[in-house]
Amino acid sequence: MTKSQDKFVTLAHGNGGRYMRELIDDVFKRHLANPHLNTNVDATLIDPGDGDILFTTDGFTVKPLEFPGGTIGSLAIHGTVNDLSVAGATAKFLSLNAFIEEGMAFEQLERIVADMAQAARQCQVEIVTGDTKVVPLKEGSGIYFATSGIGIKPRDIQLGMEKIKTGDKILISGSIGDHGTAVMLAREQFGLSGDLQSDAASVHPLTQAIRDLPGLRFMRDPTRGGLATVCAEICRNTQQGTYLFEAQIPIKEQVTAVCEMLGYDPYYLACEGRVLAVVAEQDTDEALHCWHQLNEGQDAAIIGEIIADDRRVILETELGGQRLLEELEDDPLPRIC
Amino acid sequence: MTKSQDKFVTLAHGNGGRYMRELIDDVFKRHLANPHLNTNVDATLIDPGDGDILFTTDGFTVKPLEFPGGTIGSLAIHGTVNDLSVAGATAKFLSLNAFIEEGMAFEQLERIVADMAQAARQCQVEIVTGDTKVVPLKEGSGIYFATSGIGIKPRDIQLGMEKIKTGDKILISGSIGDHGTAVMLAREQFGLSGDLQSDAASVHPLTQAIRDLPGLRFMRDPTRGGLATVCAEICRNTQQGTYLFEAQIPIKEQVTAVCEMLGYDPYYLACEGRVLAVVAEQDTDEALHCWHQLNEGQDAAIIGEIIADDRRVILETELGGQRLLEELEDDPLPRIC
Repeated sequence: MTKSQDKFVTLAHGNGGRYMRELIDDVFKRHLANPHLNTNVDATLIDPGDGDILFTTDGFTVKPLEFPGGTIGSLAIHGTVNDLSVAGATAKFLSLNAFIEEGMAFEQLERIVADMAQAARQCQVEIVTGDTKVVPLKEGSGIYFATSGIGIKPRDIQLGMEKIKTGDKILISGSIGDHGTAVMLAREQFGLSGDLQSDAASVHPLTQAIRDLPGLRFMRDPTRGGLATVCAEICRNTQQGTYLFEAQIPIKEQVTAVCEMLGYDPYYLACEGRVLAVVAEQDTDEALHCWHQLNEGQDAAIIGEIIADDRRVILETELGGQRLLEELEDDPLPRIC
Repeated sequence: MTKSQDKFVTLAHGNGGRYMRELIDDVFKRHLANPHLNTNVDATLIDPGDGDILFTTDGFTVKPLEFPGGTIGSLAIHGTVNDLSVAGATAKFLSLNAFIEEGMAFEQLERIVADMAQAARQCQVEIVTGDTKVVPLKEGSGIYFATSGIGIKPRDIQLGMEKIKTGDKILISGSIGDHGTAVMLAREQFGLSGDLQSDAASVHPLTQAIRDLPGLRFMRDPTRGGLATVCAEICRNTQQGTYLFEAQIPIKEQVTAVCEMLGYDPYYLACEGRVLAVVAEQDTDEALHCWHQLNEGQDAAIIGEIIADDRRVILETELGGQRLLEELEDDPLPRIC
């Protein structure tokens, strides 16, 4: 423990001096140690290896900081690993920024950083550079993270929304809305509770399993804004429509129940461990087969297709009607990721 | 302006939907546009070019967000560019994370992002990937940034604290403590004011001017914790001492005056545009000459040397006495960078 058994982070832990060094050494460096992490240098030498170099970043503000299925620490690893994975890459090196609120308990900080370290090991990524700031009480909220990631993509994998064609199929790797619902329940602000786990996880096994299929057009992890928002982005960028079949979309009973009680729409709820893939029809069965072989892809399903005669997100309901999924506007569910 | 002439950022601007897209397009993308920035992709393809690839990151929480000589926007560019520069590299690509507090005025956000964009152009770096989060009122403070940077270092430049030898000289590129003092004055919390400008700037012209000198051992920009903290790190990591001459250290009169009034020690105050360099004796004059040729290096000076018979930071005062500069402990001046 830093600063002679301090139990809480103080502003002195952010001033650049001895306490800050102890915080970094005793908490961050101890858990996150790897051959490339040297907290005495300004910039770290990396060798990404052969292939295209991809670069991405993500910020993390989830509340509560610990929730069933993860913490903000593992989420900060998975979120950035996933952005690289859906682009067809393998994540290699991460940077880490922590914005810690004065008064945060070291015990909780330790749990979060340990969870982060475990996630990094599982994903085989190294945190090679970092920075810590301590902000005064009420000018933060526990801890916020930002992670940037560098990954390598085989040069012959070329994915993108611009590759999407009419008739392509839309696949989802598992049930939607688990993360958003689990976080809401963990807040206990609605008098609800439950044992639903967040789906937060690395999607790399899922993306790696299908990324070499020639018919794979595009992948994305539906985080903030959920499935409906990814589909809206596809429509806006491709000038085509997405037609979804409600009956095919995997949603857990608990998620449906919570959404009905609170008036939320599961199609807009965040996932943190799912992949939406757009695949040419001839490779759809193979993609689904690949996913079904994985633990992470047991519930994978073909949920819709790309259409030409409408440029909106249309949901065919279980009763056979049609519902438009409009772009998300006033549905603020802050600090979900 | 986003969300139909909204004047303030709302939580809806962070929900992943239309308002967030408008915030990103209308503010961030409009100012920061460059050929590599595509806000529709999860990860951006970069080609750093030939040389060693260096990776770094920094977080920014300065208060006030705008101060004489800069804003948190330009600081977020300079800080990360500088970490790469002192490592001998040239910054190429940046990632950007913004944590915006609900209620922030769009007018101020625009000014800050425009200032950031100008700094990026001056530094010839591109922001190629980003993420924005909006946190509820009182769970942030205006805006925090994190930037990660990728730079390229010529392979034959090898710098590091481990190269430092007894007898090497310590150089500083300009006056110390300007940034810390300017930010303190800008807070107006002590009833003081003044026209002192922060030294916040890119140090790349300074580092580039001397990075090819064979006698250059190590460079660092003395930010949080100031000159004394960099010297303490040198001592701790090299098991040698640093001997500084107070009479040689450039400090502006205004900085000295403010420090005397408030009881601060200028040796611990942050700079954001200075370089400390350790240079072998035979190249010291050449290094100083290179710096004096530059606008940024007009006040450069040889301020001390590396000694073997003591492992501490010793300041020889103008009166000929000696003062130990201990490692910074309880001197919290939060949100200085």
